[in-house]
Amino acid sequence: MSSEIVNSINNIALNNDEDFVDPWNVVSKSDTGVDYDKLIQRFGSSKIDQELLDRFEKITGKKVHHLLRRGVFFSHRDMHTILNLYESGKPFYLYTGRGPSSKSMHLGHLIPFTLCKWLQDVFNVPLVIQLTDDEKTLWKDIKLEEAHEMAYENAKDIIAVGFDPKKTFIFSNLDYIGQCPDFYRNMIRIQKCVTFNQVKGIFGFDDSTVIGKIAFPAAQATPALSTSFPHIFNGKKFPCLIPCAIDQDPYFRMTRDVCPRLGFQKPALLHSKFFPALQGAQTKMSASDPNSTIFCCDTPKQLKNKINKHAFSGGQVTVEEHRKIGGNCDVDISYQYLRFFLEDDDKLEQIRKDYTSGALLTGELKKILIDTITPIIVQHQERRAEVTDEVLKEYMMPRKLEFDYK
Amino acid sequence: MSSEIVNSINNIALNNDEDFVDPWNVVSKSDTGVDYDKLIQRFGSSKIDQELLDRFEKITGKKVHHLLRRGVFFSHRDMHTILNLYESGKPFYLYTGRGPSSKSMHLGHLIPFTLCKWLQDVFNVPLVIQLTDDEKTLWKDIKLEEAHEMAYENAKDIIAVGFDPKKTFIFSNLDYIGQCPDFYRNMIRIQKCVTFNQVKGIFGFDDSTVIGKIAFPAAQATPALSTSFPHIFNGKKFPCLIPCAIDQDPYFRMTRDVCPRLGFQKPALLHSKFFPALQGAQTKMSASDPNSTIFCCDTPKQLKNKINKHAFSGGQVTVEEHRKIGGNCDVDISYQYLRFFLEDDDKLEQIRKDYTSGALLTGELKKILIDTITPIIVQHQERRAEVTDEVLKEYMMPRKLEFDYK
Repeated sequence: MSSEIVNSINNIALNNDEDFVDPWNVVSKSDTGVDYDKLIQRFGSSKIDQELLDRFEKITGKKVHHLLRRGVFFSHRDMHTILNLYESGKPFYLYTGRGPSSKSMHLGHLIPFTLCKWLQDVFNVPLVIQLTDDEKTLWKDIKLEEAHEMAYENAKDIIAVGFDPKKTFIFSNLDYIGQCPDFYRNMIRIQKCVTFNQVKGIFGFDDSTVIGKIAFPAAQATPALSTSFPHIFNGKKFPCLIPCAIDQDPYFRMTRDVCPRLGFQKPALLHSKFFPALQGAQTKMSASDPNSTIFCCDTPKQLKNKINKHAFSGGQVTVEEHRKIGGNCDVDISYQYLRFFLEDDDKLEQIRKDYTSGALLTGELKKILIDTITPIIVQHQERRAEVTDEVLKEYMMPRKLEFDYK
Repeated sequence: MSSEIVNSINNIALNNDEDFVDPWNVVSKSDTGVDYDKLIQRFGSSKIDQELLDRFEKITGKKVHHLLRRGVFFSHRDMHTILNLYESGKPFYLYTGRGPSSKSMHLGHLIPFTLCKWLQDVFNVPLVIQLTDDEKTLWKDIKLEEAHEMAYENAKDIIAVGFDPKKTFIFSNLDYIGQCPDFYRNMIRIQKCVTFNQVKGIFGFDDSTVIGKIAFPAAQATPALSTSFPHIFNGKKFPCLIPCAIDQDPYFRMTRDVCPRLGFQKPALLHSKFFPALQGAQTKMSASDPNSTIFCCDTPKQLKNKINKHAFSGGQVTVEEHRKIGGNCDVDISYQYLRFFLEDDDKLEQIRKDYTSGALLTGELKKILIDTITPIIVQHQERRAEVTDEVLKEYMMPRKLEFDYK
């Protein structure tokens, strides 16, 4: 058993006062949210440090994305290997995914896709996006048909992020696994390498777990083998980089354990922090709680109301007190959201200073957030409206992609 | 948990002096082989009795096949339901399968297919044949490619049995599951209904079992849902009858437990006894031991040598003794094989009498067997030689089948 797998087992046996993070639950006892440094230690990944960011900029000639320079993506595995490949003109691809859980995606769901789009543009590489509708029907009390429909609705939101159709393949597992023998075969190869003991340790399964859940981690691992996409990679092996939220790491620890045994390189990873719920950083935003969540389909009015009503404030109870003591940006959800969505570093820093000093009031900060997010959401909705069934079909059709070997 | 499932769990907790029967092992302590009456009791199936056979003949107007009237197929589940359907002109289909384990099939493998062909002719119904090459790569130390190749080689032997190409679909799991989203979706639906606890009880899995094995029973259950074959059944639900060796019953007990929960009728079953190894009835014939096995590709000379050399004899040590005491047909492999392959009841009964009385010597009995099997094998090989890649493709192409509703 590799050390990565052992680390993941340790994750199960947490102390009661530690954060709990697995693919289905994120719970932190602290109002500043999960302790991500501890998570890096526990998961055995590496911190994205200034040296990596500097190298990134040097090699690509591009200023790194604000989600990287602000530490929203904070952890990685083998990212230097990917930069080495790029530096020497060797090909690789991006893989990310989504477990469709409601008809509309929420703000937090956009984060990995936003970085993916940026990475696709910077590296000029193909991207495969897995919609795990099979997972959703296995875990939730919903019919397979509903999960499949949600996958298609979510695909529209994903396309609206602006991915290049010549370089992006989006697929629903419930479609594609039944369309591509190579995918099913790789899944079986992976399922032959992983015991119940291992998935028990990694995912906390027990004897009452249904066999679909037990087998599923292989379905999420399979896209890390490039031969699962013969229409894109023509049966050849290419390394892959997976940007994802840190809670998905257990799947890819397993994947990294299996890959070398099947003659594939371990996938590299970029981990993001969680997008906090409106009510505060103890939990991540979740589509199943509408009050904690800003959906991509919310109207400007809904958006405004939700932020004004529900966004947890780091400010003081009275204006007088706030002017005197100042606000706490570390717990203030409006400020936290701005770190995700306000691109201008100087402006963000000024806001931080003003709110901390008390010069900026909570209502004013909320207004800045509303003014920042509203155009993002409105534009997203406009782009989504252009995603016709025709466009959807284009992205989701197994087909050749542009793949520049240089 | 249904009583069928509970029965199967009891199968694990056997006394040491009882026969052991599961899909991977058949071991009997008795030299007359497995005690099939006990197996019926333990598995909770029903005996194929004279009443059922009489009804069969009355309804179909055909004399029942010698494999049925001699009790080679000895046990069933819900066969009266199938006869009711046939009687009232309602449609159903046949499903059987094969786990490809060597490039050539052996004599024992032909048994379920022989009855299937007869049932297909008598009932005039479609037949789907699953080649579980995915199972084989999961259970054996062989590459997926080898298992897939064996499936195709076995398909040639199966086609040589004489199935009607207009009514028969043969498929490899490693091909078809990746070609048919409906199949994969039904598999996920089944995997959602079955817990690790259940497969542990039914198949004896434990924590060190790989997750591919744990999930596999769903793949074998899926063809019992007619919607897994949209090209044949056009998305409609039809009942199914599964002729198979009794060791496959655990899979179908699980299937019968799941079907009603997914809105499908439980499949009916016809169970055959095992085809004994040349060395005796304690074990079934196995492709992994060439000395115990007559392959469909053996030459007449090999066949003759194997029977003369290895077929366990129920006769006495010297001719004198044999003439005096007589032979024991219950343990004599040559006689047992004749029960499978010699169609003429009167001739078989005469042989039994003569060997029991000592009038027929072991060498003479072996010669009768050789003379009976040689033309069967030779003709099989001739038909197999006609199975070109073209013919193979015809049977294995997902396509519309003739399906007479009447």
